[in-house]
Amino acid sequence: MAKSVLTPQATDFPRWYQDVVAKAELADNGPVRGTMVIRPYGYAIWERMQAEIDLRIKAAGVANAYFPLLIPESYLRREAEHVEGFSPELAVVTHGGGKKLEEPVVVRPTSETIINSYFAKWIQSYRDLPLLINQWANVVRWELRPRLFLRTTEFLWQEGHTAHASESDARAFALRILSDVYEDVMTNVLAIPVLTGRKTDNERFAGATTTWTCEAMMRDGKALQMGTSHELGQNFARAFEITYLDEAGQQSYVWQTSWGVSTRLMGALVMVHGDDDGLRLPPRLAPVQVVVVLARADDGADTAAAALAEELRTAGLRVELDLRTDTSFGRRVVDWELKGVPVRLEVGPRDLAQGMVVVARRDTGTKTSVALPGVVGAVTAALDAIHGALLDEASALRRSRTVDAAGLDEAVEAAATGFAVLPMSALGVDGETTLNRAGISIRCIQSADGGLPGSSHDATDDAPLVAVVGRAY
Amino acid sequence: MAKSVLTPQATDFPRWYQDVVAKAELADNGPVRGTMVIRPYGYAIWERMQAEIDLRIKAAGVANAYFPLLIPESYLRREAEHVEGFSPELAVVTHGGGKKLEEPVVVRPTSETIINSYFAKWIQSYRDLPLLINQWANVVRWELRPRLFLRTTEFLWQEGHTAHASESDARAFALRILSDVYEDVMTNVLAIPVLTGRKTDNERFAGATTTWTCEAMMRDGKALQMGTSHELGQNFARAFEITYLDEAGQQSYVWQTSWGVSTRLMGALVMVHGDDDGLRLPPRLAPVQVVVVLARADDGADTAAAALAEELRTAGLRVELDLRTDTSFGRRVVDWELKGVPVRLEVGPRDLAQGMVVVARRDTGTKTSVALPGVVGAVTAALDAIHGALLDEASALRRSRTVDAAGLDEAVEAAATGFAVLPMSALGVDGETTLNRAGISIRCIQSADGGLPGSSHDATDDAPLVAVVGRAY
Repeated sequence: MAKSVLTPQATDFPRWYQDVVAKAELADNGPVRGTMVIRPYGYAIWERMQAEIDLRIKAAGVANAYFPLLIPESYLRREAEHVEGFSPELAVVTHGGGKKLEEPVVVRPTSETIINSYFAKWIQSYRDLPLLINQWANVVRWELRPRLFLRTTEFLWQEGHTAHASESDARAFALRILSDVYEDVMTNVLAIPVLTGRKTDNERFAGATTTWTCEAMMRDGKALQMGTSHELGQNFARAFEITYLDEAGQQSYVWQTSWGVSTRLMGALVMVHGDDDGLRLPPRLAPVQVVVVLARADDGADTAAAALAEELRTAGLRVELDLRTDTSFGRRVVDWELKGVPVRLEVGPRDLAQGMVVVARRDTGTKTSVALPGVVGAVTAALDAIHGALLDEASALRRSRTVDAAGLDEAVEAAATGFAVLPMSALGVDGETTLNRAGISIRCIQSADGGLPGSSHDATDDAPLVAVVGRAY
Repeated sequence: MAKSVLTPQATDFPRWYQDVVAKAELADNGPVRGTMVIRPYGYAIWERMQAEIDLRIKAAGVANAYFPLLIPESYLRREAEHVEGFSPELAVVTHGGGKKLEEPVVVRPTSETIINSYFAKWIQSYRDLPLLINQWANVVRWELRPRLFLRTTEFLWQEGHTAHASESDARAFALRILSDVYEDVMTNVLAIPVLTGRKTDNERFAGATTTWTCEAMMRDGKALQMGTSHELGQNFARAFEITYLDEAGQQSYVWQTSWGVSTRLMGALVMVHGDDDGLRLPPRLAPVQVVVVLARADDGADTAAAALAEELRTAGLRVELDLRTDTSFGRRVVDWELKGVPVRLEVGPRDLAQGMVVVARRDTGTKTSVALPGVVGAVTAALDAIHGALLDEASALRRSRTVDAAGLDEAVEAAATGFAVLPMSALGVDGETTLNRAGISIRCIQSADGGLPGSSHDATDDAPLVAVVGRAY
């Protein structure tokens, strides 16, 4: 309806993304290259994500804790593969308290090394297992081609770290986080359909034995890695000497997992649901679910608008009241659309005189006149419908842009506009390298029957495997 | 009752503090000098503090946001007094992404400089004011004599930053945060009585025109600064060119405030309420308000204990159920006392046979037999009583250790065991220096009538002023 202030998606998707992030006031670039300022509206969305994720992490029996930002450089060297993965990305503190430090310290790029050095102290016996810890923190990985939320030198995340008595316990827990926390939040709160599967050895987290991933398709057909859950085997246990006395009185190394999601999810939210008018926030996530917009303040319409807002709040909804009639109604509507508020209640003197208000849905743009006594019911029904509609729309897009490919050439062609599903048997020894040269990566490996495959280090998988390939952010 | 595992307070208070922090599993030292690991139980308490503070900050109209950890060194130099205050404490990153950086960046010691550089972009007109922003973040200030929670190289805090159209608006807001957020949480949640007042010019935050403070007395008679709220005048506005077009069409500099509380509050909690058996947590803060401890599992006592825990949870309480009968009852009681859980419900087969359980209060050690149908009422009443009792006890201690002093000698003597209240007129020109040489500082200036004095830069105060002096952490 209202004229857009954004570059259309079809014209230039990356430019559209930048426009939305700026104009919906989600984030700004920081002064140090690659860093970002998360503005209040962006942060309110992130706080809602955090709350939903934190609830599920705690329900899985995990406790939050906090470990230091600064890590001695020597800690990172203890696990060889791990340091190799991170060394080009490190920020190094060489001076502290006005003096050169004896040993440089790094700003944490992730916390496996420091957390595991404490696990070694805290874990003595099988009674201390499983040890299930999470932290919400900032991490720093120097980023050469930064992009707000998607790739930033500093980002916010949660990182879970656990220790278990057996490999099967560790595997089960890594998969529980993948499905009960990550997939559940992404699908049922963010309304983003995700593919779950395992990473190839090439794409696996440095130091992990298996990396499990949730992958989503953005509106331009590209993939975004949404979150990962790693089986670490005994790699860190051996490097940090994390052993326990088992029930038989034997010293054994623990089996571990780590897992994380980050402010990257904000980028996914924009690129999965956003349209040419701005954000479209899924209602279960939105910090503002309903905005009550007063058109003109005549004839007590402001009092009526305030009463409606209060009635909606009492019904348990997150509501904002917009009485700024010194700014034009049209301009405010454009702004609320930019910000993606799922439902707009338009309150004007003429409608009110007839006992009516207008309920406008952000996802479809449809407007319905509703009699005053039915407002709470109509808004609640609209919010429920919007969650389903956004999820269906994203699922339909992914379906329409996913091709079953028989061989590499076909997969490369399909990945120009979306995903290709390729039998692993058709990939061959150099298949992944060939794809990578074409700017395409294997997003995840799945079982041909739709289920999850075994872990990377399993000798065999029961069903034939397929690779989901695409271009990635 | 149970034999203590702690150094008694009377023997060695600092050692007692270290013992409690370690044995109640609140925190550990980090590998980089002065950093700390906040363990799950400590972090659960901190999360409860955060929730209570965040609620009140938002009720004052403030929005959360997030600004970068890394700040260009040049930013800190823009406000001269400010850089002077912080330069000896800075952690400096000189290398990033495998290369030496062209300009070194500092790890934020506080965020006035970076936040104000964005305020300059975001504030254009009087309609953009007041701008009220808060962030929850980690900050780094190199600490030479670290002590867990009290002085750490990295700590967690919230820092609020606001911009207003007038000096009086800024002052009113700084004082609103002081009383409605800080004093309210400290008194009504943490059960810690605080003195509010302003800092001397000497003790003022670098860059502020007035610093307001909340000060509390620890159980050893020493003072701890609990939180501060600063009027910044136009110092940062001039340094960062933060101007707005007022209603008359004139460009003016904004007036600002900043304010913060940190994980230091955890140290206060330990030292205000703790006793020789460990922590004593105030019930409104405690992550576990009631622990149901099963003595022996005979005769279905475990089922009864679980049912009681569930009944208490249903009543809205935070409850833990301890069924670990493979560890002795006495040892578990000692542990729950160490952890300061306000109410313990002891469930054993013999009492149960008579339809009774024991309600034990952590603050007084009193135990009462309660008939099963009355358990929720008895526990709720005990929790209410404990909040008041802890607050009264701390207030009484402060009263008993506070002396009205007529002159400096008397004040120095009184400060050996507590606080002295000294007329500002008796302080003289060199009085503060004399006190400082004796290891004593002016904690805050108050009005002799008990109210708050004017701001530092006011020419006159209405009532005579007094200085509260003491030794400080």
